[in-house]
Amino acid sequence: MPVAVDMWADQIRAGDVRAISRAITAIEDHDPQSEELLKRIFPSTGRAYVIGVTGAPGTGKSTLVDRLAAHYRHLGEHVGIIAVDPTSPYTGGAILGDRIRMQAHATDAGIFIRSMATRGFLGGLARATGDVALVLDAAGKRYVLVETVGVGQDEVDIVRLADCTLVLLVPGLGDDVQSMKAGLMEIADIFVLNKADREGADRLAAEIEAMLQLVPERDGWKPRIVRTVATENKGVDELAGEIAEFRERTKQSAERQAKRVEHWRRRLLALAEEQFLQRAVPGTQGEAALDALAREVADRTKDPYAAVRELLSRAGL
Amino acid sequence: MPVAVDMWADQIRAGDVRAISRAITAIEDHDPQSEELLKRIFPSTGRAYVIGVTGAPGTGKSTLVDRLAAHYRHLGEHVGIIAVDPTSPYTGGAILGDRIRMQAHATDAGIFIRSMATRGFLGGLARATGDVALVLDAAGKRYVLVETVGVGQDEVDIVRLADCTLVLLVPGLGDDVQSMKAGLMEIADIFVLNKADREGADRLAAEIEAMLQLVPERDGWKPRIVRTVATENKGVDELAGEIAEFRERTKQSAERQAKRVEHWRRRLLALAEEQFLQRAVPGTQGEAALDALAREVADRTKDPYAAVRELLSRAGL
Repeated sequence: MPVAVDMWADQIRAGDVRAISRAITAIEDHDPQSEELLKRIFPSTGRAYVIGVTGAPGTGKSTLVDRLAAHYRHLGEHVGIIAVDPTSPYTGGAILGDRIRMQAHATDAGIFIRSMATRGFLGGLARATGDVALVLDAAGKRYVLVETVGVGQDEVDIVRLADCTLVLLVPGLGDDVQSMKAGLMEIADIFVLNKADREGADRLAAEIEAMLQLVPERDGWKPRIVRTVATENKGVDELAGEIAEFRERTKQSAERQAKRVEHWRRRLLALAEEQFLQRAVPGTQGEAALDALAREVADRTKDPYAAVRELLSRAGL
Repeated sequence: MPVAVDMWADQIRAGDVRAISRAITAIEDHDPQSEELLKRIFPSTGRAYVIGVTGAPGTGKSTLVDRLAAHYRHLGEHVGIIAVDPTSPYTGGAILGDRIRMQAHATDAGIFIRSMATRGFLGGLARATGDVALVLDAAGKRYVLVETVGVGQDEVDIVRLADCTLVLLVPGLGDDVQSMKAGLMEIADIFVLNKADREGADRLAAEIEAMLQLVPERDGWKPRIVRTVATENKGVDELAGEIAEFRERTKQSAERQAKRVEHWRRRLLALAEEQFLQRAVPGTQGEAALDALAREVADRTKDPYAAVRELLSRAGL
């Protein structure tokens, strides 16, 4: 098996599409082989530039990501795209859309698209996305675009992976700039005002400007606003230019260094927690034991702290 | 110390306001005494009915919660309110508003209001809120209203505490019913269409009805829509009536039982994770060691899995 994993790692480093796909599936399935694989490819990582793209549904994230990917492909760079879709039982459309996108790029081996659903992952999604980004990094993708709906904590955690974060806004989505966007203000490196040919673009730009007054400069960088009409490929080159400038400006910065350390801090903790849980609640039997404990506590026949002590001792603590 | 904790628990059971306040502060501060206290009061819990109230900023949650609390007070019931505020560095207004609210009820010992900020809690906030609800439960509050902004995973976790969940919507907040509200559809037991005297109320009600067609009935209950104008106390009695009916209908249901077990499952896991983290990253020294590991991984001089093994062995695993 070590030999097989070594070969698998070699194939990934060579950019083999099937090997990459298998690796991502292994990560999604929590296959123990994926850990062995990630250990092997880890030294080949750290060269990709990860761009996070977030925004509410309907802001045109997928189109913008596709255009940006095409821009980098024209420069001869290999690109990976990870689309994180919060699929609820009532909205299954994302997966279909993704298949259509993959077909559009199917003839270009220099671009790799993979969607990851949030269902069943819960807190582990950011970890899984991070591992997939490592695989694409090792596979020689110089740009990894991570696309996610900017709503929950999960999405914020995913965005924390990125070296540069784009927040998409569009005119005419209502009064929610003041509410939902407040959280996004803190994570945006560049605001993309997409569908900028629509009415209300100037007003939205003014609103963002006004809110930006309240945000302290980070690392000498004040978030820019770039206007795009992604469907017509307008403003995409300009956006790529701003990303490049942000990259150049933050390359040596102490803040970027701190961000990378913080990023790994979180990931190490998440990984450690996952390992702990695997020991405390091992498989179906562990689940059944946990259910029994939960039932006793719900019935007030056991207090929660006694139940937790049992869980810890089961993990070997 | 055990004697002191016993006395403290007695005071809480007697509804002593200062004892309750001290307990909540101890929970927020992760004071080890809080665990001792919760163990003692746990057998006296399980009688409160927990109502979760969630909705976007500007939907009038606080006013509605106040009115609902007043309704229960008129029936002679004691009420606890936990207001969970996602205070970002840029919005500190919630705390001030809360102080004003507390003063308004200051002369009524039968009502207890406490706000909890999300800052610094991260994933632990749901746990802390749950523990505070237990304290209020033991203190004889027959209704515990938990008020939170419905945006992120944290909030969803908090709402999972509730026996009955109200989702507030108001007319005229834009097109986002289709996006943000999709997630709320799954958690709402009752929709409160607040500010129902505004233009667009009928259209919003029709939109909710349309979305409800897609949601399967849970436990023989189809979420209702109640119209209120909380500022004028309109529709509040009717809302309380719907809550009472929901409570009656779900009292014996298998789904409610399953929900309680699921609730404790999550809490036990969260508590166990917390204990694990306290061992893996003990205090300032542990934080420094974790930072050092994260730095080595960021610099690619150590692989993440080796770093995680160090964390686990530090926890005693």
